[in-house]
Amino acid sequence: MKAAVLRGGQIVVDEVDEPVPGPGEVLVAVRACGICGSDLHFVHHGARFVQLSSEMRGVPTRPAVDLGRDVRMGHEFCGEVLEAGPDTDAPPPGTLVTSIPALQRGAERTSLSFTNDEAAGYGERMVLSASLLLEVPAGIDPAIAAMTEPLAVGLHAVNRSGIQAGDAAVVLGCGPVGLSIIAGLRRGGIEPIVATDYSPARRATALAMGAHEAVDPTTEDGVAAWRRLDGRRPLVVFEAVGVPGMIDGAMREAPRNTRIVVPGLCMETDVIQPVIGILKELTIQFVVAYDGDEFAGALDSIATGEIDVSPMITGRVGLDDIAQAFDDLARPDRHTKVVVEPHA
Amino acid sequence: MKAAVLRGGQIVVDEVDEPVPGPGEVLVAVRACGICGSDLHFVHHGARFVQLSSEMRGVPTRPAVDLGRDVRMGHEFCGEVLEAGPDTDAPPPGTLVTSIPALQRGAERTSLSFTNDEAAGYGERMVLSASLLLEVPAGIDPAIAAMTEPLAVGLHAVNRSGIQAGDAAVVLGCGPVGLSIIAGLRRGGIEPIVATDYSPARRATALAMGAHEAVDPTTEDGVAAWRRLDGRRPLVVFEAVGVPGMIDGAMREAPRNTRIVVPGLCMETDVIQPVIGILKELTIQFVVAYDGDEFAGALDSIATGEIDVSPMITGRVGLDDIAQAFDDLARPDRHTKVVVEPHA
Repeated sequence: MKAAVLRGGQIVVDEVDEPVPGPGEVLVAVRACGICGSDLHFVHHGARFVQLSSEMRGVPTRPAVDLGRDVRMGHEFCGEVLEAGPDTDAPPPGTLVTSIPALQRGAERTSLSFTNDEAAGYGERMVLSASLLLEVPAGIDPAIAAMTEPLAVGLHAVNRSGIQAGDAAVVLGCGPVGLSIIAGLRRGGIEPIVATDYSPARRATALAMGAHEAVDPTTEDGVAAWRRLDGRRPLVVFEAVGVPGMIDGAMREAPRNTRIVVPGLCMETDVIQPVIGILKELTIQFVVAYDGDEFAGALDSIATGEIDVSPMITGRVGLDDIAQAFDDLARPDRHTKVVVEPHA
Repeated sequence: MKAAVLRGGQIVVDEVDEPVPGPGEVLVAVRACGICGSDLHFVHHGARFVQLSSEMRGVPTRPAVDLGRDVRMGHEFCGEVLEAGPDTDAPPPGTLVTSIPALQRGAERTSLSFTNDEAAGYGERMVLSASLLLEVPAGIDPAIAAMTEPLAVGLHAVNRSGIQAGDAAVVLGCGPVGLSIIAGLRRGGIEPIVATDYSPARRATALAMGAHEAVDPTTEDGVAAWRRLDGRRPLVVFEAVGVPGMIDGAMREAPRNTRIVVPGLCMETDVIQPVIGILKELTIQFVVAYDGDEFAGALDSIATGEIDVSPMITGRVGLDDIAQAFDDLARPDRHTKVVVEPHA
């Protein structure tokens, strides 16, 4: 079958082995898979990511990704069930499903985000664990259902932040994670929600998804905009850009006692001034991903229409155009979320 | 009168103007004043500290310290009341007092930590605000009472961390702040408390003040020691060293979901790897100082004997020997806390 792979730092489309579902697994046709900013980061900074992952302690060791071999990516997917593996209880063929991007094999959970050995979302077909499948209600566009994953990332960041009614929020960056955070904050009754992005299109999307104000950071800093609009409520800043310097900038602008929540997956070394954090008693809270309940909740919010993720989808491409889509996404004035549709 | 001042990057002792108490103020003879690590940092990195303070927003602007003029320091003091200013209700002469290091003039609160215009603790006499005075109970050694301030810093860090019974703690650095944190953790029933310091003498003091284990980080990392002793309880790491690289090191070693509390006043630029924070969902919580209740509580803990701060005092010097004491404190194998006794 056909799949896009990361090979020698380039995204290329090639013929790969057909995935075969084992016991407890299901073969699905990938109907839609969103391109994530972390995939773009990984293309440029994968070696650093792999090295840091191996250097740090305190997390279960996992097989390192080998950049000398093809790397499969694509973790925001919606698939259609084709067939179940041996002795596997699964939804009938034709059912639309999604799943957290992992395989559950016994007690072992293997990530599908960056993998040498499994099929992932940037391909015609992939294997999922039956125990992790969530059925997508009838009538939902697979591309919309594929937004479950980035929405769950945003809702998790909001949950972990501990923000509550009566607080205010500044969201730095209106990519898919920033937009998902905005949607979660709006649902939680936070006001005002100030969003920042260089792109006029993304600022418009931020307003459509629930921000009360969206500013261009070249003109007005996000915290300054919060001061203009409010300036009194306890503030939580969400750093959803993920490039060096963003945390330092937020620390310099934030008022005393601000919590800076960081879901932006910056893979580069960053510089901070601890004295600023100390004098203002700031907290930097790094967050990642979601748990199973948050993922299911995100799908539910999409299915019931509670959160409309459609404004964030700005493009759809076939497998052959993934490399071009990666390039386009590096210019955020053109796109927010591009969805790959391998069979469209 | 005689005082030590920071002049052109050097600590020098000189004749300075006699301080005069205004309305609501009290003139005291400084009986003891501890030398704080932040004073040592300020001698070397004062210019950077002043610049960063001026660059950051979100805190009330305060008069910048002018390094081109004499800077007065000394904020861990115990004094003896000499006379009250005009129309001032104050304890009788001879009363031992301490205070948070600030003057309250109307709504304005002026810090005495680094100041061009006020007398501070490294001098024969200083002025304090009557409204902020705390009487030191009879029989307490002024040098012990002067430890109220660093103890309050440590107790505040413990309070802010949210650590609770059932959690474990690693304290990086057994200077006065680290030791005060250890005392606060022990009082709160935290177990195990693992302390780290290069100095055998400081490790012994850590054990005397409540640590269950004290390790040399050249031999065993603090988090590794926690793994050996416990490895299961939720962990809070306190970074009480305050030099570049400590936060990065703690992030690399810490287990998932660790809170890293940072009271160490690092005045230099520091480097972190955000990806490590994100993959482990770490929180970096910067803290500083204390509130009035915490300061009063620290004095009370000393006065009642609940916390014995005497092991941290390793030296006493007169005003003329402050510069030498600063040099000695830069070699932490010799000293923990040196107290200046201007009238001894």
